[in-house]
Amino acid sequence: MSIDELCINTIRVLSMDAVQKANSGHPGAPMGMAPMAYVLWDRFLKHNPQNPLWINRDRFILSPGHASAMLYSLLHLTGYDLPFDELTKFRQWGSKTPGHPEHGWTPGAEATTGPLGQGFCNGIGMAIAERWLAQQYNRPGYNIIDHYTYAIVSDGDLMEGITSEAASLAGTLQLGKVIYLYDDNDISIEGSTDITFKEDVALRFKAYGWQVLGPLDGNDIQAINNAIRDAQNETRYPSLIICKTIIGCGSPNKQGKCSSHGQPLGVDEVALTRTNLNWQYSEPFKIPQEAINHFRKATDRGKTEQDKWQLLFDSYRVAYPDEYKHLMEDLSSELPQGWEEGLDNLFTDVTNTMATREASGQIINLIAPKIRNLVGGSADLAPSIKTTINDAESFSADCYSGRNFHFGIREHAMGAIANGMTLHGGLIPFVSTFLVFYDYMCAAVRLSAFMKQGVIYIYSHDSIGVGEDGPTHQPIEQLMGLRMVPDLVTIRPADATETVEAWRIAIKNRNNPTALVFTRQKLPVIDRQSTAPASGVRNGGYILWQSSHEPDIILIATGSEVHIALEAGRLLDEQGIASRVVSMPSWELFEAQSAEYRDSVLPRHIKARISIEAGLTFGWERYVGNDGIAIGIDRFGASAPYRVLYQQFGLTADRMVSEAHKLLKNNK
Amino acid sequence: MSIDELCINTIRVLSMDAVQKANSGHPGAPMGMAPMAYVLWDRFLKHNPQNPLWINRDRFILSPGHASAMLYSLLHLTGYDLPFDELTKFRQWGSKTPGHPEHGWTPGAEATTGPLGQGFCNGIGMAIAERWLAQQYNRPGYNIIDHYTYAIVSDGDLMEGITSEAASLAGTLQLGKVIYLYDDNDISIEGSTDITFKEDVALRFKAYGWQVLGPLDGNDIQAINNAIRDAQNETRYPSLIICKTIIGCGSPNKQGKCSSHGQPLGVDEVALTRTNLNWQYSEPFKIPQEAINHFRKATDRGKTEQDKWQLLFDSYRVAYPDEYKHLMEDLSSELPQGWEEGLDNLFTDVTNTMATREASGQIINLIAPKIRNLVGGSADLAPSIKTTINDAESFSADCYSGRNFHFGIREHAMGAIANGMTLHGGLIPFVSTFLVFYDYMCAAVRLSAFMKQGVIYIYSHDSIGVGEDGPTHQPIEQLMGLRMVPDLVTIRPADATETVEAWRIAIKNRNNPTALVFTRQKLPVIDRQSTAPASGVRNGGYILWQSSHEPDIILIATGSEVHIALEAGRLLDEQGIASRVVSMPSWELFEAQSAEYRDSVLPRHIKARISIEAGLTFGWERYVGNDGIAIGIDRFGASAPYRVLYQQFGLTADRMVSEAHKLLKNNK
Repeated sequence: MSIDELCINTIRVLSMDAVQKANSGHPGAPMGMAPMAYVLWDRFLKHNPQNPLWINRDRFILSPGHASAMLYSLLHLTGYDLPFDELTKFRQWGSKTPGHPEHGWTPGAEATTGPLGQGFCNGIGMAIAERWLAQQYNRPGYNIIDHYTYAIVSDGDLMEGITSEAASLAGTLQLGKVIYLYDDNDISIEGSTDITFKEDVALRFKAYGWQVLGPLDGNDIQAINNAIRDAQNETRYPSLIICKTIIGCGSPNKQGKCSSHGQPLGVDEVALTRTNLNWQYSEPFKIPQEAINHFRKATDRGKTEQDKWQLLFDSYRVAYPDEYKHLMEDLSSELPQGWEEGLDNLFTDVTNTMATREASGQIINLIAPKIRNLVGGSADLAPSIKTTINDAESFSADCYSGRNFHFGIREHAMGAIANGMTLHGGLIPFVSTFLVFYDYMCAAVRLSAFMKQGVIYIYSHDSIGVGEDGPTHQPIEQLMGLRMVPDLVTIRPADATETVEAWRIAIKNRNNPTALVFTRQKLPVIDRQSTAPASGVRNGGYILWQSSHEPDIILIATGSEVHIALEAGRLLDEQGIASRVVSMPSWELFEAQSAEYRDSVLPRHIKARISIEAGLTFGWERYVGNDGIAIGIDRFGASAPYRVLYQQFGLTADRMVSEAHKLLKNNK
Repeated sequence: MSIDELCINTIRVLSMDAVQKANSGHPGAPMGMAPMAYVLWDRFLKHNPQNPLWINRDRFILSPGHASAMLYSLLHLTGYDLPFDELTKFRQWGSKTPGHPEHGWTPGAEATTGPLGQGFCNGIGMAIAERWLAQQYNRPGYNIIDHYTYAIVSDGDLMEGITSEAASLAGTLQLGKVIYLYDDNDISIEGSTDITFKEDVALRFKAYGWQVLGPLDGNDIQAINNAIRDAQNETRYPSLIICKTIIGCGSPNKQGKCSSHGQPLGVDEVALTRTNLNWQYSEPFKIPQEAINHFRKATDRGKTEQDKWQLLFDSYRVAYPDEYKHLMEDLSSELPQGWEEGLDNLFTDVTNTMATREASGQIINLIAPKIRNLVGGSADLAPSIKTTINDAESFSADCYSGRNFHFGIREHAMGAIANGMTLHGGLIPFVSTFLVFYDYMCAAVRLSAFMKQGVIYIYSHDSIGVGEDGPTHQPIEQLMGLRMVPDLVTIRPADATETVEAWRIAIKNRNNPTALVFTRQKLPVIDRQSTAPASGVRNGGYILWQSSHEPDIILIATGSEVHIALEAGRLLDEQGIASRVVSMPSWELFEAQSAEYRDSVLPRHIKARISIEAGLTFGWERYVGNDGIAIGIDRFGASAPYRVLYQQFGLTADRMVSEAHKLLKNNK
């Protein structure tokens, strides 16, 4: 057996054994993909297992995350900090080898994958970040940022719509350093891919503007080698290398069948597979010394590669001190000094009315010149959402240093690409669409949160305030939906001044995603002379205004409805009912405060409470309690001018006042 | 001006005027698409405006729903029950002409469109339903079901991933009666489509297995005519006709520009456009008599077409009385007599343990032989979700009467295609994936609810009970997310017997979608001798079991956690604490009950309440109140065997018991 074959079979056997021991998992994909992964990792991948965060490493993504056993095998074999023990604890509580790769948990897992298509798109985002940093910071003779983004992708990845979105964009952007290997094994869980997927993948990717190589024999090491070389040589177009593989390759009775996909091969078949592969060892998890020696050469190669790069980088530091400083700043999560300057005084004219999306646009343009690596854009709605950075170029094949991103009408890929950008490092991306279209991309947002990526999501047109476009464009349940995602911070500011605070929080929140929720319609700028300062946003909820007496009732609102609550509060005050108006732009931030603070805003003894929000009442029980009233919208919206809708749906100060009277009467 | 030009300009002017009067909307698309829509409606579309529900009509979908003004113009002009007045009330409260077409509200609006890509997929679903009914019911000489599905689709539709998914499937299924006209106007909101969408659309659709015609001049009536004819002649492949159009065509200063996309042209430009189009009338909304005469011929043609068909159908009734009866039954929402037979006695063995997904599979196979038009499948997870109808064929290009659908790994399109199937009529479709992948398809589910379509959504693997696959595959917030969608009924049964009830409700719920939420893991079958009957599911929540004394505490649970609550209840009872266990499989159904019933299950005076659910606690405040405790999971999951996870996440009877003690102590 050649050393190559030995190494490939080592991956196969380790993967098969891990799944067998866990009695759960996916042996088929690792066994089929092993040769392509081996060739890539052995001969091409530039990485330093002892420093998985080296910025100029090649990125490798395993988009079909269910093949995680293969990734863990590779990580262990090439010397990452993933001890042998962990391989044997595959899929167990607390192990570093969970069912699907988890970024931030297992060293070398560049992205959390499993939900199909996401990894494909993350890679496109990484390649975008690479090109952006390269164009910003590389100088003649100093290709400081210069690496490939590799991925293995599967039939399932290619069927998912999100992949189409990203592939089309990657072709348009001519991301030539993207090299994807397609594990074309003709098998899906329900059987042959022919039953659902007869398309000509090669032709489809050519249509997107990709170089397509193969189909080649996925067990032919030389062919894989040559194809990756050809892909590297094509600098203008992203490359897809089609590798015809056999799922479960090596298993005499299960290879080529879906029975090898999602369950252990079984003890007997594992034994037969060992024989079939001419494997010398009968005990599980045995790694031949020759194989480990060969794989561990990668450790040395990686160190050498990084050392070489470090020398270059050291002299770059001398030659280009400013660029060096800026690059280091971009790569760290540090924000440049003074980036907040001017924010406090941006919106002081209380005679003004302004949509929060408009305020957001002004804020972006105030901070963008200071935060060099703040980049972003929209799924074809920039003029509506006000996300354009003035005086900046568009990111395009002709201008990789552009800061305005055009994602096309591709919300889902936009989210996953943004994840790739932050996973790569160096950029602070914001992406935007209408709030109702959060539905198109929520799977990517969930992964931002799970991977703890500081992506800034901008969702405007946040309610029936959308008006005439009607119910298809009016979010109802989406705002509450955002609040439900663990580790996502959602902020719905009430006016321009709260929008400033919201942006401050989002920019500082580098280790979690933030969702900023903005109105289409104009809103007054709250007069902070007669109310509390907007800095209260940092606490999630705060007392915006109250009567001079101890309040009889608390009115709680978010966003555009804060103005209605303020009006109602003042009306009640005139009627002799002492009221408190609480602005509650962020539930997550409010929940993160001390119980003492929360009780000071919403004292337990004041049970007369009314909330108002132009969305579901579902969930508001948390703050209005058993005795309170939640005013909102528990049906789909309607098409009409927004003022008409607010009246028709009963989102008015008069309604609040009348509910307050009822409530106080009942509670007496 | 020829009559064709006059009619086309009538559409343009009416659309432009409607937008101008509403002072909101999208004039550009209608003006660009008017010729292709006119040729299609004038020369090809087989429909009867006076009977918009004629089953064998051609279907027409306007996928870019923002071009609604054009659709409304066509509907009015061809004689649908859409009075002239409504055109002038475009986008106003209560009008039949909302911002985007709404199915079920405006006669002739075959689908609610606006969220891009959905209409494209709905059409594929309609074409599937057409083929299915045709193969089931047509007989030699009796092509009772035989119509085309047309759509106009836009750049935005083609960029959305959902479209790729459906297009690839449509090619695989060889849906030759799909004819789509692509409004290729090179313009998106952010500018030229070149900035994001340089792909070769023709090549891409050829790769999917479509016939691609054009590009042709979108103002060339004869070319459009010939292309539609060629598309009809190609019976094996779906057809995409690429029409190069000019957005805002006719507006001298705004045509070809994004400024004509999303806002009125303006009074001056409207006037200039009239002149430019040689329009004879200066007042808005003027319809030339010649034009209306010409369009109304469609009314007569439609009547003639349907009369001809009715004659055929009448003799079919005589020749094939059984087929006739069955077809009529399928097309109505009536369920065949006796369809519920055997359900009551399906799961009586209380020594059995069974996942609810497994129970669901058995139920499907019990009722499928009786309900002929129950069809469905999965996004490549049928073996896991147990959705296969035994002894039935797969729906494929070779077998359009198949009842097992293979959607591929395309959750989003699956949902939208199911919507198309019910919109067409004749089928009761169920579609399925893992609950966590609801995130990939929620935009389509929302439209099911908004369009009131009786699609049955099956979501299995509904919690951390997924186990080793880990957090990427473990839903946390998705269950609560389903509950938040207006007009969607979500049911999470506790065992096999509740699963029977859940299916009963779903099958009967023909005018709204239902989401059925099932476990991966095995569960005991509840012994109904010592507890209340499972028919309580119909009330959404019911008293499953209680101590013999008036309860001190109420334990509320859903799905797999009902067993934990039952165990806790009995433990508490042994400890002398009287408890009540409420099974709450459907919040929506519970909320629909009388206040009296709800109070009887959850009496107001019993404030000691604990809920348990393997998902977010968010929202449970509604039922446990200010003084209660919600046990759940407010973080992402983990990878480990599921029993370990239940322990680690504290979802145990012991935890419930200890919380109960604390609660009762505090409340004293």
